[in-house]
Amino acid sequence: MGPIRREQICRAAAVVISREGFAGSTMRMVAEEAGVSTGMLNHYFVNRQDLLTQALVYVSERTQDRYREAIVDIPAGMERLTALLDATLSGDEEMTETWRLWINAYAEAVRLPELRHTIEARLHSWWELIDLALEGLVPAPAPGEIPVAWRFDAMLNGLAIQALTSEAPLTPAKIRDEVIRATLGDAKVRPITSARRKRVAAGGR
Amino acid sequence: MGPIRREQICRAAAVVISREGFAGSTMRMVAEEAGVSTGMLNHYFVNRQDLLTQALVYVSERTQDRYREAIVDIPAGMERLTALLDATLSGDEEMTETWRLWINAYAEAVRLPELRHTIEARLHSWWELIDLALEGLVPAPAPGEIPVAWRFDAMLNGLAIQALTSEAPLTPAKIRDEVIRATLGDAKVRPITSARRKRVAAGGR
Repeated sequence: MGPIRREQICRAAAVVISREGFAGSTMRMVAEEAGVSTGMLNHYFVNRQDLLTQALVYVSERTQDRYREAIVDIPAGMERLTALLDATLSGDEEMTETWRLWINAYAEAVRLPELRHTIEARLHSWWELIDLALEGLVPAPAPGEIPVAWRFDAMLNGLAIQALTSEAPLTPAKIRDEVIRATLGDAKVRPITSARRKRVAAGGR
Repeated sequence: MGPIRREQICRAAAVVISREGFAGSTMRMVAEEAGVSTGMLNHYFVNRQDLLTQALVYVSERTQDRYREAIVDIPAGMERLTALLDATLSGDEEMTETWRLWINAYAEAVRLPELRHTIEARLHSWWELIDLALEGLVPAPAPGEIPVAWRFDAMLNGLAIQALTSEAPLTPAKIRDEVIRATLGDAKVRPITSARRKRVAAGGR
């Protein structure tokens, strides 16, 4: 019962934080969303920060499972890379919730070392997925260069934040192309044909 | 007296939000930091969101003035570009406060259209500064490409967030080189000699 209850509360916390922002979320709101008592919440989570951290881990594992499924049956190459980016930028409710929760977690992480540690662990498993999507497409980084997965993540994150927090007219397709450009260089950015896109979609979802 | 008092409170709000996070900041904390009554605060700011928004504008104008000063006397070219990046990544207290405030604002902006509008306005004046720093270094974007200033901002933001919210060993020099690479391409990334660095520092601060 414990793990299921914990998952139920983490899922509710993700919904509430995504809707209200972490600054506007209370333990009571999360208890109501989860359909449990606040006493029950206090049993599983020592405070709001702990709830945010555990909700982030829950959401991050959920989306990384989804990303893995989106690329696992696609051979190495541009289609696999595109499938990963399309999954991160799909814009459905679950992905919107994921992005919002992450941005709220960033705000808290600047002053909470434990949360930075949690984010680091989630990044490592995310970078592994990126490396899998980039298999055969990029050489090893030159001495002094940062790993290509960091560059991929930074450009994706930076553009998604522009799209979510300003009025910049950035479509998912534009963000995808820019991340590919930042990762592989200009030569590799080319339109995806609809036939390829269909194969990607069929394999990816 | 009004504008000075408002500025004093915005400065205090930036300190408090940077230290406590927006989620942990109260109107009372900001009033105490500013040395004014909470009644005074309520006179200038309708609620916490308004305080965050006005603090963000204050800090953004302050840092953009600083960036402008850092590059205004440097001729167009790599030194001017490097001077801008060094100013954004200087790591002193004011810049740390700026980054933290921005990340807190992003978290609120995903659900507050007015704040997105404010961020958009601040981005426009930031993009102008980036374009000034890139003068003569980049061609106009090809059709369908995003403006190069957006790419610059996205990579800088994405890497700074990795550095501030995880344990990734990203130094300011590494971040600077990666932003240059993302903006100008591989060929332009080269070590800055200490003689050049000194000139940049003398002109920039």
